[in-house]
Amino acid sequence: MMKMLITGGAGFIGSHLADLLVSKNYDMVVVDNLSLGTIKNINHLANHKKFRFIKEDLLRLDPLKNIFRKNKFDTVFHLAANSDIQNSAGNPEIDLENTFLATWNLLECCRLFCVNKFVFASSSAVYGGTTRKLSEASGPLSPVSYYGAGKLASEGFICAYSSMNDIQAWIVRFPNVVGERATHGVIHDFIKKLKSNPKQLTILGDGRQKKPYLYVKDLVEAVFFVYQTAQERLNYYNVGAEDQTTVTRIAKIVCEEMQLSHVKLNYTGGKTGWRGDVPHFKYSLNKINSLGWKARYSSTEAVRLAVRSILSK
Amino acid sequence: MMKMLITGGAGFIGSHLADLLVSKNYDMVVVDNLSLGTIKNINHLANHKKFRFIKEDLLRLDPLKNIFRKNKFDTVFHLAANSDIQNSAGNPEIDLENTFLATWNLLECCRLFCVNKFVFASSSAVYGGTTRKLSEASGPLSPVSYYGAGKLASEGFICAYSSMNDIQAWIVRFPNVVGERATHGVIHDFIKKLKSNPKQLTILGDGRQKKPYLYVKDLVEAVFFVYQTAQERLNYYNVGAEDQTTVTRIAKIVCEEMQLSHVKLNYTGGKTGWRGDVPHFKYSLNKINSLGWKARYSSTEAVRLAVRSILSK
Repeated sequence: MMKMLITGGAGFIGSHLADLLVSKNYDMVVVDNLSLGTIKNINHLANHKKFRFIKEDLLRLDPLKNIFRKNKFDTVFHLAANSDIQNSAGNPEIDLENTFLATWNLLECCRLFCVNKFVFASSSAVYGGTTRKLSEASGPLSPVSYYGAGKLASEGFICAYSSMNDIQAWIVRFPNVVGERATHGVIHDFIKKLKSNPKQLTILGDGRQKKPYLYVKDLVEAVFFVYQTAQERLNYYNVGAEDQTTVTRIAKIVCEEMQLSHVKLNYTGGKTGWRGDVPHFKYSLNKINSLGWKARYSSTEAVRLAVRSILSK
Repeated sequence: MMKMLITGGAGFIGSHLADLLVSKNYDMVVVDNLSLGTIKNINHLANHKKFRFIKEDLLRLDPLKNIFRKNKFDTVFHLAANSDIQNSAGNPEIDLENTFLATWNLLECCRLFCVNKFVFASSSAVYGGTTRKLSEASGPLSPVSYYGAGKLASEGFICAYSSMNDIQAWIVRFPNVVGERATHGVIHDFIKKLKSNPKQLTILGDGRQKKPYLYVKDLVEAVFFVYQTAQERLNYYNVGAEDQTTVTRIAKIVCEEMQLSHVKLNYTGGKTGWRGDVPHFKYSLNKINSLGWKARYSSTEAVRLAVRSILSK
């Protein structure tokens, strides 16, 4: 049976991928430094005989090599990264290290221990701020955040390692992802603010920021589908929902689900919520649709599901 | 008067840029670790009162910060990098460090010391192996060498630093560059081989590798022209000659200029000279042509000039 490594597998998205791979009966090792991830997310898998968790930091190359030496991985699913773009805005080193250098260490291990399948959680952030509909063939790639830069730098080295060492790679560019186990983001902010003051809600920017949101279970199914179906040496895929949701719409959904009416919405103003944010983007999904995948939930449905899951905790 | 920093300014291309900026009367500091560059390339500038050379390695962040603290740079021309793609094929760390992390350190200095103009020597290598005519809007970017990955990773972080810190950036994607002071490459190889055996010449690959070559003085003028003329926040430009030259054609030019006839050309075979090489590429130059720049010499003329300059030494 194939043995998989999931990095960041105790995190928000990684733990859902772990659930999916366990359900498909793969042998699996999760490596996570538990800086953003948490044992709670994978506790229910702990006694599964095909599941193993190792607490380790990808920045420590020697221990990582030992993990590769002891396990013969068939495929690496690399999801570990900084995920809090706002937080790294003041400290570029966070994304240099946790988003990029972590990837480089992992690629070195793949090279040295002959692992030749690499699935990468990339991001819409590699495209940067643009009003074009983003297809995989769009260029130039001009990330506006250190996070986006770390993802693009990772993509670059994945391509080179792929070519130099015959590694097949799947680069899946995630949109905003929402759902159970998320740790931060606009939905969390709104719920937290409204719990502290149910009369008014301050929204960063003009509220018209408009993006696709994908439900986390849809996302991990898409990642696995692309991995199984696309068979080029390098496989680039945008993944997302067809529609987009505005930040004001999200605020209204949160208010509805919290059964709050007459909430006053205040706007800080400006097009961007915060520096490094991409206020609008729209994906072309032709490529992944042609491959045979479509999101089950629209952006608006995904947001509502996510709000409900947080409120029900 | 504006003060410029040239990194890698004792190297092949950097020293020609130093010549150009001196001729335009700028204050200038060259930083070079002399690993690939050499004092010989800038000796003739040493007594110029507006020129200063500092031997330092960009990987040492603290001394680099001191250089930025002491000098108020207006513009950074970042040319330092590994330039020997073949050499780094067995050791990806070379391009991680000298091509990418050197850039990151420099960007950190620009952020910390408020330098807001950054000119970057990027490369056709960011595009990877493709038969399309390469325009700046081409994607995805899939470098096949660690060198190309290091350049793409640099581009990514330049974009993010630009957006986060209001830095204007010029990303100039160089083709193969030839001329005086070059240290390696196909022309050097052929001359060296023919000096040792003038009866035959072994050519890596099938000899049909076909690329644009640009004469180094044309290149540095293009870099300066783009810097002065293009005024977006991010300015991407391919730079090259219109035509392409094959490796077999280069071999014949070398033989002609060495006045060798009846040289037997042997081919190792295969489309690629070596792993990580891009055997064919063709640039779209519409963007830089529209800006008002055209190469003075064709690829074939540039190769012949380069051969003559090496032979006359």
